[in-house]
Amino acid sequence: MQNKLVRLASRPTGWVRADNFELVEAPMPAPLEGEVLIQNDWLSLDPYMRSRISDAKSYAKGVNPGDVMVGGAVGTVVESRSSAFAVGDTVLAASGWRLYATMPAQAVTKIDASRVRASAYLGVLGMPGITAWTGLIDICQPKLGETVVVDAASGAVGSVVGQLAKQVGCRVVGVAGGRAKCEYVVNELGFDACVDHRATDFHAQLDALLPNGIDCLFENVGGEIFETLLARMNVFSRVALCGMVSEFNREPHAHRTLRSILINRIRVQGFIVSDKLDTWPAIRAQLIDRVVSGQLKFKESVVEGLETAPQAFVGLLRGENFGKQLVKLR
Amino acid sequence: MQNKLVRLASRPTGWVRADNFELVEAPMPAPLEGEVLIQNDWLSLDPYMRSRISDAKSYAKGVNPGDVMVGGAVGTVVESRSSAFAVGDTVLAASGWRLYATMPAQAVTKIDASRVRASAYLGVLGMPGITAWTGLIDICQPKLGETVVVDAASGAVGSVVGQLAKQVGCRVVGVAGGRAKCEYVVNELGFDACVDHRATDFHAQLDALLPNGIDCLFENVGGEIFETLLARMNVFSRVALCGMVSEFNREPHAHRTLRSILINRIRVQGFIVSDKLDTWPAIRAQLIDRVVSGQLKFKESVVEGLETAPQAFVGLLRGENFGKQLVKLR
Repeated sequence: MQNKLVRLASRPTGWVRADNFELVEAPMPAPLEGEVLIQNDWLSLDPYMRSRISDAKSYAKGVNPGDVMVGGAVGTVVESRSSAFAVGDTVLAASGWRLYATMPAQAVTKIDASRVRASAYLGVLGMPGITAWTGLIDICQPKLGETVVVDAASGAVGSVVGQLAKQVGCRVVGVAGGRAKCEYVVNELGFDACVDHRATDFHAQLDALLPNGIDCLFENVGGEIFETLLARMNVFSRVALCGMVSEFNREPHAHRTLRSILINRIRVQGFIVSDKLDTWPAIRAQLIDRVVSGQLKFKESVVEGLETAPQAFVGLLRGENFGKQLVKLR
Repeated sequence: MQNKLVRLASRPTGWVRADNFELVEAPMPAPLEGEVLIQNDWLSLDPYMRSRISDAKSYAKGVNPGDVMVGGAVGTVVESRSSAFAVGDTVLAASGWRLYATMPAQAVTKIDASRVRASAYLGVLGMPGITAWTGLIDICQPKLGETVVVDAASGAVGSVVGQLAKQVGCRVVGVAGGRAKCEYVVNELGFDACVDHRATDFHAQLDALLPNGIDCLFENVGGEIFETLLARMNVFSRVALCGMVSEFNREPHAHRTLRSILINRIRVQGFIVSDKLDTWPAIRAQLIDRVVSGQLKFKESVVEGLETAPQAFVGLLRGENFGKQLVKLR
């Protein structure tokens, strides 16, 4: 039996194209002592991956042409040489874009798919959900009655940010691309309002929906949207700078509203959720409880087959996904 | 006897001109019960005043055309209707650009000019010195061995920032306009190095002097300098955003290095020292001790006569001053 995997074929310049990747066959890996062999069931696609395939400095080791593409995956243990795992266990690991992977046991997390389905551990219960919690609760520190704004509001991170902020007792305004996403976050997730950043009257809508300005901004997008929102921040407000996905595929945006940071005494904090891995288990336990109780809803966007991963990743960077983008492998 | 004062004549557009102000005579003010009459000896000129005369939103109530120009001053009580002050007391108050002012006693601070000369209470022992302490110690939180960068390094704020950072055990690199200012902060104030931002090889000099990047940035200038320094910040570094004086007289600069905040998990904190007035007495006591002991040096740039204030203020905004800019009134 052969394995299949997706490698980076070439570094993208500007927008990523599907042909920056290549699907190849490879020998079936065999686990060493202390390792498990995982058959992947779900791959996670996430905006941070754009940075990993760039040669610009980023916060993690990059993927070089010829390397297997990195990423989180949920799978099933099919062979175990570790006492910590048994064949049939459902697990989460950073095993990358491949059908089968061997991983050292200490880099694998067993998950309980009986309460919440396994794929959720790549979204609401995974890195994106924990990112949302960390940025909102630990960095923005929202108070009852404050106004929270999050962009990419219907995405894997933004959707959790908004729902958590409602639970804190905040007014929550989302920013999303298109009417369907906006209707979803308001009608299904309970945001107070949502603005379509593609609307010609985007600024006027923001003015109307933010009569009291912004106290907490959870920033995923960067570019013009961030520039516009920063100018609407209140005195002593906070920005959790989580992502700037709109700036990944082009020259950096020219931001002209930094003076707002000074005048309004804003705290802007960049963060990466993997800097604080020790907090993950407690946060994940909170998220599981809230999903089980129905307080946290989530939406998945699923494509099928390893070969679809590159094009789905391109779509994610263009905002074509609606909810957490997954690749179903079997 | 007549009073004299300087009013804002018109709002500047772009660079401030001396004729945006006008010197006028006015009736001698008389103190009410609970007030004192102060004869000003020294006026303070500070970059923040540029924001006050703009109609753009800022952090303090603006000065409108026709209003007396605001500012801190050191003077002498010449008539007292408060038990807290006696004729002859040396005092600090926000009495503005005028020869005589009445002030309520609770808005006046008595100063002890026996240990350090009175004018220092407008610079190293005043708002600028306390700004330096707050931004460096409370916001940047420098650690032993870290690299601290401060721009406008020879100015009233920057000169204190650098000296305090040396006392914490940091490597300190200043940025200043011109060779004389750079030589001063290195040779007189003990900075480790200083870069002239007007030098054609400014970026190359920064590269050479910052082999380990920047851990703490005390930012006074904004514009290209801030943009350049932000790109050189380290992982988990901090920016105390104190001023953006280079952007006050023109369109906001287009900043293209915000991604550094995300990638390096930088904390950028805007601050205004007057938000925390309760900390001032303890910080001032620290600064007095250090000036008396010779640990903190300071330099003053003095013009004489109320009529010289507008032109000196224009010069300050252009960086023509060298050290704390004062107007000596008598």
